[in-house]
Amino acid sequence: MDKNEEKQREEEREQVVSPWEVSSSGKIDYDKLIDKFGCQRLDQSLVDRVQRLTGRPPHVFLRRGVFFAHRDLNDILDAYEKGEKFYLYTGRGPSSEALHLGHLVPFMFTKYLQDAFKVPLVIQLTDDEKCMWKNLSVEESQRLARENAKDIIACGFDVTKTFIFSDFDYVGGAFYKNMVKVAKCVTYNKVVGIFGFTGEDHIGKVSFPPVQAVPSFPSSFPHLFSGKDHLRCLIPCAIDQDPYFRMTRDVAPRIGYHKPALIESSFFPALQGETGKMSASDPNSAIYVTDSAKAIKNKINKYAFSGGQESVELHRKLGANLEVDIPVKYLSFFLEDDAELEHIKKEYGAGGMLTGEVKQRLAKVLTELVERHQVARAAVTDEVTLLHAITETE
Amino acid sequence: MDKNEEKQREEEREQVVSPWEVSSSGKIDYDKLIDKFGCQRLDQSLVDRVQRLTGRPPHVFLRRGVFFAHRDLNDILDAYEKGEKFYLYTGRGPSSEALHLGHLVPFMFTKYLQDAFKVPLVIQLTDDEKCMWKNLSVEESQRLARENAKDIIACGFDVTKTFIFSDFDYVGGAFYKNMVKVAKCVTYNKVVGIFGFTGEDHIGKVSFPPVQAVPSFPSSFPHLFSGKDHLRCLIPCAIDQDPYFRMTRDVAPRIGYHKPALIESSFFPALQGETGKMSASDPNSAIYVTDSAKAIKNKINKYAFSGGQESVELHRKLGANLEVDIPVKYLSFFLEDDAELEHIKKEYGAGGMLTGEVKQRLAKVLTELVERHQVARAAVTDEVTLLHAITETE
Repeated sequence: MDKNEEKQREEEREQVVSPWEVSSSGKIDYDKLIDKFGCQRLDQSLVDRVQRLTGRPPHVFLRRGVFFAHRDLNDILDAYEKGEKFYLYTGRGPSSEALHLGHLVPFMFTKYLQDAFKVPLVIQLTDDEKCMWKNLSVEESQRLARENAKDIIACGFDVTKTFIFSDFDYVGGAFYKNMVKVAKCVTYNKVVGIFGFTGEDHIGKVSFPPVQAVPSFPSSFPHLFSGKDHLRCLIPCAIDQDPYFRMTRDVAPRIGYHKPALIESSFFPALQGETGKMSASDPNSAIYVTDSAKAIKNKINKYAFSGGQESVELHRKLGANLEVDIPVKYLSFFLEDDAELEHIKKEYGAGGMLTGEVKQRLAKVLTELVERHQVARAAVTDEVTLLHAITETE
Repeated sequence: MDKNEEKQREEEREQVVSPWEVSSSGKIDYDKLIDKFGCQRLDQSLVDRVQRLTGRPPHVFLRRGVFFAHRDLNDILDAYEKGEKFYLYTGRGPSSEALHLGHLVPFMFTKYLQDAFKVPLVIQLTDDEKCMWKNLSVEESQRLARENAKDIIACGFDVTKTFIFSDFDYVGGAFYKNMVKVAKCVTYNKVVGIFGFTGEDHIGKVSFPPVQAVPSFPSSFPHLFSGKDHLRCLIPCAIDQDPYFRMTRDVAPRIGYHKPALIESSFFPALQGETGKMSASDPNSAIYVTDSAKAIKNKINKYAFSGGQESVELHRKLGANLEVDIPVKYLSFFLEDDAELEHIKKEYGAGGMLTGEVKQRLAKVLTELVERHQVARAAVTDEVTLLHAITETE
């Protein structure tokens, strides 16, 4: 390996983004990611267009750039403007018992999209994927999917327009047919190129990409979208899921379907700092929706990476480094009030506000959010099945 | 490539047996196959044991060595002797509209086993596989599966004990769960070793072996075998299917299941001679169950490879070479009467009988068989669904 190769490898090592790994030696360079993946930046004119078409203010995650990239969002909006409907598809790999806040991001944003555009939504719980990648038993994966579904339902989706399903419960019939159609169009070399599989990976992994691909096609849901094969699909997701949909979009026209459109988010950072996604396997890197007010307060105080200075004196003089400060970052996700956020950033950045004060405000915001969630979740009974039906699709 | 390599490759080319290809430069060497695959020869003592346990004469295909190899047949019989039941699993890849006689061999033998042991049977129609390997559309594969199912039902299975299903109709639920369990245990390198996939093969192929593996496990059929997870399975099949079940047997104990047992057949030869399987794509290599009496007669007269001599004089003097003679081979599959077969072989081999006479006898036997089949098939209505239920499993 010569020096140039070595340098290139090092750069690649610096930033790894795949459906199974997000790691970086520094901050994630999203511009670089957009270039690498070939998606598009979601610019202000698009945000404005969404606002105009829906007649409501853009979601916090939209106007603050949490959702920052897309594929064919313009086309979806073109169609919507002409009176065509579309449907939403999002999902979750149920790898942990309790969701953390990072997990809520796509669901909260998806709920906004559902409300704003009044469209149906399908939510795939890839219990089969987790069973394969995380070495969980089928039963445990399904149990996690059921538990996670309660959390997802608690996000307040319109149940008359939402279909939540686990792969293990639902895969089959029209769905499986589309899986096979997709699989036929994708060579092993191609998935190696896309997903980096090796010969020692098990074939369940090689088989899986079509499972995640086909909810993009309405014909996978005949009881929902019968006769609506040309209904378009929009996928809100974090950008690490892009490889799946790059593959899906490559295949779609070859099997007579629309390419799904995407709207892609950056990652909700870990308490320790912004070098990757929160990890469900490190409980101290994340706030869970099951955490108590006390736990939230403790975690924020103990682990949330601060951009404040080492001493009060220095802080008053230099102010906080907002670029690396996690409390501010979290507030920018969950504090609704733009004016208050601006005020905090200004004061904190100038040294007028201390880290402790910002953390206290964050604890309050997150505690309220988590407690609201816990109440909603308690109202979800065991009778609620994963296999919701969409009773209205118009 | 050096000379030794070249020689080895040539030997390998001489005899290729895989689920997708059977070819040989001469006769298939079954002993070599048994060695290569690692299965066991089905000897006379086993045939005798089957006769003793079932209280009926062994089937023609058994006593004449059409089914000649096995894996763990002894264990199945041990269990059966102790009063344990097992179930049968066989299948068909529906790649053609009409079945030919070679296709009937496993079904006829399976019917005998079902009757003799009074056991349930599942029949998998791998329409997904044919869709992937033969470049058929999903709809066409399913249509072929439905058409083939009628032919299979016409073989006279006990409908209270038989479940015929197409993968496209049925895969899902418990079945899919087992697929994933199997897939988790098999690496890509392993399937490359077993099936010879290349990087340019599509991932549907790589995904497929588990689909064919899991009917070996009773838990794949919860509506049939609920609470009977330790029910054993015996698989009658042609030996080219062995790689699938070698893989299945390797995996079974790792996921808590019995290894399926196998009983494996040689191939029903083409009219042109015994160098491979009959091919559905060459209509003149096979007799179809849709053929008329006239077509059967013509095909036999025109294409059936004869071991007779070039002239009547020479034939009377030397007799026929029974080793290569197809009419005699076919009669040994379908002529019930052992004594008559012996008589024909003796007379024909000694030159007392001419090829024309043997072919005439064969035409009569096959015409009767095909006409019986056509009557039975006509009685199968469109109302008969692929998704038969087993109403009795004991």
